[in-house]
Amino acid sequence: MTVSSHSLLPNATLAAAQRAIDRCKLLARFTETPGKIQRTFLCDPIRHCHRELANWMRALGAEVKIDAAGNFRAVYPGLAPDAHRLLIGSHLDTVPDAGEYDGALGVVLAIALIEELNGKKLPFAVEVAGFSEEEGIRFGVPFIGSRALTGTLDPDLLGRQDGNGVTIQQAIEAFGLDPNDIPAAIAHNVLGYIEFHIEQGPVLETMNRPLAAVDAIVGQSRFELIFRGAANHAGTTPMISRRDSLAGAAEWITAVERKAHSVAGLVATVGSIHATPGVTNVIAEETRLSLDVRHASNELRTQAVEALLGEAACIAQSRGLQVLWNERMNQPAVAMDPFLVVQIEKSIADAGCAPHRMASGAGHDAMILAQRIPAAMIFLRSPGGISHNPAETVEITDVAKAIDAGLRLLDRLASSREFLSGAVYKRPEV
Amino acid sequence: MTVSSHSLLPNATLAAAQRAIDRCKLLARFTETPGKIQRTFLCDPIRHCHRELANWMRALGAEVKIDAAGNFRAVYPGLAPDAHRLLIGSHLDTVPDAGEYDGALGVVLAIALIEELNGKKLPFAVEVAGFSEEEGIRFGVPFIGSRALTGTLDPDLLGRQDGNGVTIQQAIEAFGLDPNDIPAAIAHNVLGYIEFHIEQGPVLETMNRPLAAVDAIVGQSRFELIFRGAANHAGTTPMISRRDSLAGAAEWITAVERKAHSVAGLVATVGSIHATPGVTNVIAEETRLSLDVRHASNELRTQAVEALLGEAACIAQSRGLQVLWNERMNQPAVAMDPFLVVQIEKSIADAGCAPHRMASGAGHDAMILAQRIPAAMIFLRSPGGISHNPAETVEITDVAKAIDAGLRLLDRLASSREFLSGAVYKRPEV
Repeated sequence: MTVSSHSLLPNATLAAAQRAIDRCKLLARFTETPGKIQRTFLCDPIRHCHRELANWMRALGAEVKIDAAGNFRAVYPGLAPDAHRLLIGSHLDTVPDAGEYDGALGVVLAIALIEELNGKKLPFAVEVAGFSEEEGIRFGVPFIGSRALTGTLDPDLLGRQDGNGVTIQQAIEAFGLDPNDIPAAIAHNVLGYIEFHIEQGPVLETMNRPLAAVDAIVGQSRFELIFRGAANHAGTTPMISRRDSLAGAAEWITAVERKAHSVAGLVATVGSIHATPGVTNVIAEETRLSLDVRHASNELRTQAVEALLGEAACIAQSRGLQVLWNERMNQPAVAMDPFLVVQIEKSIADAGCAPHRMASGAGHDAMILAQRIPAAMIFLRSPGGISHNPAETVEITDVAKAIDAGLRLLDRLASSREFLSGAVYKRPEV
Repeated sequence: MTVSSHSLLPNATLAAAQRAIDRCKLLARFTETPGKIQRTFLCDPIRHCHRELANWMRALGAEVKIDAAGNFRAVYPGLAPDAHRLLIGSHLDTVPDAGEYDGALGVVLAIALIEELNGKKLPFAVEVAGFSEEEGIRFGVPFIGSRALTGTLDPDLLGRQDGNGVTIQQAIEAFGLDPNDIPAAIAHNVLGYIEFHIEQGPVLETMNRPLAAVDAIVGQSRFELIFRGAANHAGTTPMISRRDSLAGAAEWITAVERKAHSVAGLVATVGSIHATPGVTNVIAEETRLSLDVRHASNELRTQAVEALLGEAACIAQSRGLQVLWNERMNQPAVAMDPFLVVQIEKSIADAGCAPHRMASGAGHDAMILAQRIPAAMIFLRSPGGISHNPAETVEITDVAKAIDAGLRLLDRLASSREFLSGAVYKRPEV
């Protein structure tokens, strides 16, 4: 934060940015784990978040409800009573030991934009959405909230249990909601969806830019690999007689890294590894590892995965090992709406920032919304690239620029015949 | 086992070999864990082993005792009442889920040799030792039995606790022995120590030889290494922005393997690895691994360790990681007695087998005995190189050849003025 960047922003916008940050810190106090931030799907602290958000939105004349999937929904009316809606939001749940801004910042920024309208009405209503579930922590399934809002929540999922044997259905009932009302959570007459979110990576910081327009959410492939060799005595087994699963896995991990470096935009990660029996003086019989591969191009991602599995097979063969793999995820990349991406880029430039366009390496609710309606995202720089961590933070000037760009975006959309007429949400068949 | 190899052996020796194998299987029934073989220091099943061994040895006119460290000791007298002793033995404890032959075979082969003497007396007494503790499972300290016999058991060790808070002292008392008598367990007037043991590796099988003379027990270095980087999002962190501790550790594991392949006789193993946080979609912040390096030359082992730690430091530096290491073991190589090694080689050749000389990659009681008296070992081929495993086995013809070679060794020692006069055990200062 420099004096010069401050000086470009009106004091009112800086005050709004400070208020947004303060609200994130307030919401962070509502937690399942004392001393840490943790809010999983429909835990009790979520009620306190809803109460605060409702107070802020009712003060703006909005109609507030909690839908049957536990999403916070508040509609700031448009010029006409039957105006279609622009959705702006993000998620209210968190990972364990989370930071203050992941998700929450997107919700309070939606509210800040409406506050900055100072009662001005737009040709569309603005619905603020605080999604109940994005991280997938409690039930191992992400996006419960945004799937309900788009009518893409598989009813079978309601029987899924958390670690205590409580089903999603029971969690909804325990929160005082009726799972039978989930179909009524579907949003209708929606023109588009905008999500503000911290980048959660180092790209904007490295480029020294505060904001980015997100043009795609990368596709993800996840695999579990198992290398199998032979457990043998670490002292009595000569090197040439070994079938060391961990040595094979290590060779493959270096190949994964090399491959990812060789393709622009590709990331590939081995984050989990388990060697069995896993003791100092025994050659590891079996090594299990995870693979996570992401790219905005499904084709390049699929090619990389095939190359890496082929490499695993070669390494295993040359070492007398077996290798098996299980696909755990194959999620295609999701393009953001090109019209909205351009409007966001222009609005960022209008706010005096060099526009940058990038893919999101992480999944977001916008990915789910994009299946049904035009959707796009605005990233805010993450200092240190740190997220999912108590050290997660934002620069107040970046938040102020996000508010500035957001207001300019609302102006652009309000005066766009194309947006107001063309891109109307089609009701999904549920 | 082929007909031709059978045909070289007298039926009586084959019968003795079968009896030795049957006795190993009998001892294997005495276990702490139903369905598996497990005998840790002075567990109750050890009493049953002692009973059986005592019966076999008393039938040969031997004097039997259990010393204060729980070692089985039985002296088959020599020609003169004050004859010095040749010790022959191995250990009676096992690892969890052990095989039938590790340790036990060495004890029953000692008995078999005396049985094959058919009452003949030698110019030395033969003391059969069944050591109470070699594996170090119960208290994390190996060689309790052989240390007591050589007077090298640190008295402070007696306070060491097992997983249930029972001290070595208490375990000895619970077995009905008096820890104050441990100094009386020291063996006196010992000419030398011979230990038969399965190889526990694939070398003899690969060379198609049944027996080896062990000329050294390799030195061992053990380290824990910790690579530290930064936990970051696997999707949002570009490859060039990563400080991935697991990728660094993997590069180093491949370097460990490469180094071990480049030095004859060197083995180096990473058997244990733990990555933190250890989840699919997070770059591993910290990776801990074990290193186990062994060689018969202390100089070559030390050089290899220094090279590998240097390599770890280079890898860490080039990746922006930290690396720390802790030495867990630095055990020098132990040479076997050159005179005994030559006698064993000659006896193996006398028995019609191509003699082979090798280092033991694993520690054995002979390593402890060698600190005080001339000691050497005879390895028997391990089919498949398998040990510390229920699949551990031996070939009956190899056991017969071991008995044959052992009898020829007794003959050689009985007629060696050098052995009978020179290499008398010096009482250690305790």
